Amino acid sequence: MTNKKDINAGIIIIGNEILSGRTKDTNTSTLATWLNSLGIKVNEVRVIPDVESVIMNTINKFRKKFNYVFTSGGIGPTHDDITSESVSKAFGMTYGPHKDAFKILEKYYKTEEFNKGRQKMAWMPLEAKLILNPTSGAPGFYIENVFCLPGVPSILKSMLGGIQNKIVGGDPILSLSINLKTVESEIAKSLSDVQNKNLDVEIGSYPFFKAGKLGVSLVLRGTDQSKINNCSLEIYKIAREKNIQIIKDQI
Amino acid sequence: MTNKKDINAGIIIIGNEILSGRTKDTNTSTLATWLNSLGIKVNEVRVIPDVESVIMNTINKFRKKFNYVFTSGGIGPTHDDITSESVSKAFGMTYGPHKDAFKILEKYYKTEEFNKGRQKMAWMPLEAKLILNPTSGAPGFYIENVFCLPGVPSILKSMLGGIQNKIVGGDPILSLSINLKTVESEIAKSLSDVQNKNLDVEIGSYPFFKAGKLGVSLVLRGTDQSKINNCSLEIYKIAREKNIQIIKDQI
Repeated sequence: MTNKKDINAGIIIIGNEILSGRTKDTNTSTLATWLNSLGIKVNEVRVIPDVESVIMNTINKFRKKFNYVFTSGGIGPTHDDITSESVSKAFGMTYGPHKDAFKILEKYYKTEEFNKGRQKMAWMPLEAKLILNPTSGAPGFYIENVFCLPGVPSILKSMLGGIQNKIVGGDPILSLSINLKTVESEIAKSLSDVQNKNLDVEIGSYPFFKAGKLGVSLVLRGTDQSKINNCSLEIYKIAREKNIQIIKDQI
Repeated sequence: MTNKKDINAGIIIIGNEILSGRTKDTNTSTLATWLNSLGIKVNEVRVIPDVESVIMNTINKFRKKFNYVFTSGGIGPTHDDITSESVSKAFGMTYGPHKDAFKILEKYYKTEEFNKGRQKMAWMPLEAKLILNPTSGAPGFYIENVFCLPGVPSILKSMLGGIQNKIVGGDPILSLSINLKTVESEIAKSLSDVQNKNLDVEIGSYPFFKAGKLGVSLVLRGTDQSKINNCSLEIYKIAREKNIQIIKDQI
């Protein structure tokens, strides 16, 4: 099996509401799960405030560091939505009313509704390409390897289908979970041996306490299904030897 | 009113399970809400993988950049728990069995239970000070301004009480939410004017679509209650003038 190049991504979550604790970020999980299905690994996530210089610096660092960059938040109509302008500045591009975005919004709203606030949503780097928004009209946009999406989770999710064909992925990242009725320290040593013998499979160990159940979820991740399967057999063997019950339910 | 110095913090979420999308991070929200109540503003969050060099570099950047640093994850007994060793290296300290941590764990477990895996949880920088864990025994630790906590949300939460007195906070960050039955673009211009007149109050605007309700949540944040109140009066005035309904329920 020939391995494609490893393709990676960085995610930038922009918004004071996440840093204040008011809102729990779920866009990271949505984006990461989707990217994994395309064979792209997320290497880093940063949550940053609505501050122009911070957004610019982070964009410029990330677009050099990662194959793909995704931003979430700050492309709406209000004063605290400064992502589009900051991204324009990061790329040294003109920030202004984007012709095609303007047309989309003009068509989406009634003439009397298409006020300054709504028009602002057409402002972005003039050279940007659009990401269509099937939920609420206002498009996202991308420049080179940087994709700018809105912060509202349901809208962000609905826009991913539209960019799938703009992204070149890697080998799909496969995963297999094994849930054991035990605690981590009972299996730590054996698990470490299995990890050392199976370097192409990443074994994560996560204790859980859910619905009265206590256990450890082992997550095997890699791009080669047969290596994951072999690794899982070794774990099942340990469970048998230590008389540890395997939990079949979804955790 | 004399203003205390602005005190800030950075949060480092360590764990492949967040980057893969498997687990949604809730520790940021828990830590940020708690820090805000102590008058400490979170300026940045990074989610990074279980990779020693990345953990070391991030720790060393953050401890210089922020007054306080909190890490979550990677202090358990398994092979993928490498935070304690990485933090030791970042500080140039010896990683070994911490005397007091060892005593706590020795007491917590029966002799026959206190195996190598569990003993590993006592390994940390030898000079570290402990953070007690009222839930599951194994302590966290801190060195200078870096506080290392576990990744399991309920355990992390239970350990915050024990460090409250080790942290010097700033003026409490106050907030007031006003929920309007409107869309952002209807109020964007007026809101921008209010923000420009009230620079000591940070106004965040967040659209919501919940339980069939559509609206905008405005969050006013600052350290001076009277300034927040004045700002809120201006927003109520705009709502009256534009005939926008105020939603009283919790959003």
